[in-house]
Amino acid sequence: MSSVAGSREPLLRVAVTGGTHGNEMCGVYLARYWLKFPGELQRPSFSAMPVLANPAATAACRRYMDRDLNRTFTFTFLGSTATPDDPYEVKRARELNQLLGPKGTGQAFDFILDLHNTTANTGVCLISETSHSSFNLHLCHYLQLQNPGLPCRLFQHEPPGMETYSMESVSKNGICLELGPQPQGVLRADLFSQMRALVASTLDFIELFNQGMDFPAFEMDIYRNVASVDFPRTTDGDLAGTVHPQLQRLYTGVILVRVFLGDVIDILICIVRTMMFLKQQNHLSDTFLRTNL
Amino acid sequence: MSSVAGSREPLLRVAVTGGTHGNEMCGVYLARYWLKFPGELQRPSFSAMPVLANPAATAACRRYMDRDLNRTFTFTFLGSTATPDDPYEVKRARELNQLLGPKGTGQAFDFILDLHNTTANTGVCLISETSHSSFNLHLCHYLQLQNPGLPCRLFQHEPPGMETYSMESVSKNGICLELGPQPQGVLRADLFSQMRALVASTLDFIELFNQGMDFPAFEMDIYRNVASVDFPRTTDGDLAGTVHPQLQRLYTGVILVRVFLGDVIDILICIVRTMMFLKQQNHLSDTFLRTNL
Repeated sequence: MSSVAGSREPLLRVAVTGGTHGNEMCGVYLARYWLKFPGELQRPSFSAMPVLANPAATAACRRYMDRDLNRTFTFTFLGSTATPDDPYEVKRARELNQLLGPKGTGQAFDFILDLHNTTANTGVCLISETSHSSFNLHLCHYLQLQNPGLPCRLFQHEPPGMETYSMESVSKNGICLELGPQPQGVLRADLFSQMRALVASTLDFIELFNQGMDFPAFEMDIYRNVASVDFPRTTDGDLAGTVHPQLQRLYTGVILVRVFLGDVIDILICIVRTMMFLKQQNHLSDTFLRTNL
Repeated sequence: MSSVAGSREPLLRVAVTGGTHGNEMCGVYLARYWLKFPGELQRPSFSAMPVLANPAATAACRRYMDRDLNRTFTFTFLGSTATPDDPYEVKRARELNQLLGPKGTGQAFDFILDLHNTTANTGVCLISETSHSSFNLHLCHYLQLQNPGLPCRLFQHEPPGMETYSMESVSKNGICLELGPQPQGVLRADLFSQMRALVASTLDFIELFNQGMDFPAFEMDIYRNVASVDFPRTTDGDLAGTVHPQLQRLYTGVILVRVFLGDVIDILICIVRTMMFLKQQNHLSDTFLRTNL
């Protein structure tokens, strides 16, 4: 990984969005809290703006009302002519694009940190789109150094079709912070505190970046999706098995599926983890990717 | 607790209901499975009928569509005149009352075992209405003996207003099996297997009861609700704290609440657990309750 040094534009217009999925409660409660007490999001060079991204879904404690908001920030949706029958999330995506974008323009916010929870036991997982990689790699490395005991992984996401559609794709740079395990609609105090601290560290990192701090080069693992394996299913499409009882926790390398239709059968499926070492000698734009299986 | 012995009517018409809440997935998948392969619910003296209680909510992966089905089996709802505008769950409760009841009559099923999941770390929790206590106490004791390493608690529920409203209240006797922790909409293989085994043991117990087996007297703890304590809230009614990070797991005696509005403050709230020892020397109807704090 390259060092981040030299002349660079500070990130002055920063937003922290929660409730993009209305039943992922850490971000919902943090956004509500910061809307009342925004001081926690202030740093010397900037003040991050808190945003409750999907108020209707949050009020209903549902992931979304009509369609997934976090798949709706495409140029197709954002640029289409508004009609009264538009799905709620399409209307809301246009509002957020006005507030934090417009996407792809010089007026867009410099950085969006979008807060999510998952029922999976991911620990801390930063999800970054490929085009945003260099700054985000340094951010992830900073969070790893700040939290040595915590699993803090970077997942590099390439949207199918290559058009970005996420909340943070509206800004010039951005990242999604995924924290689990937490059931939907449930707030766990330990994860709430953890997310609050991670947001504070992220803003600290942006502040250090803005102050011109030099971040030395390093090497790290990055995760990306190499394949999706469906559960065993019946001819009707019903689930015929689930993740093995002994492997409910995050585990790289091997997934066992327990089939419960008829006799219990354990099936071994190997999931190959791909690690990408990003090495770069000089400059942010000169990235060299080496893929190891 | 009394012994269960002597002349008694066998339980021949038994139902196992899953998906009463459509996003509690162990019961949903088990009911679907048994509807295709009902052999697992057969015993020498009876065959339990599998029922998917709330098909619309199950298809939508939601707790309910219009109102909570498991609060809808009151005589008021069941006896009211049907109209096209009735909530979905009121219509469905009447259908289930025809299938498994009618509630409060001699035609009703002998026993309903209703399957539920919770996000709370309850382990195995049997929920029994007071009027059904004696048979259910012996059932719980049997499950405890069958699963010595498993927390298996009996919660005696007294519905507010004293009118029963649950799924199992339709039958002459019945019990709710609550298993946690499992996020809504998620199926954990370990809990799925556990619930499947517990249902098998419950049917085994009913079979032994039907065969006239003598169940000796015993003593056990029963849990009941002594008070409900709300979370700290803001003047707007928003949550201002949650269960303390160190106490996310089931814990009797003390609950700490962490307040996250402003500075972090830990508040100590003592929850008194009431244990009820049911001691009875001779007969089921001669119950003596002693409450210990």
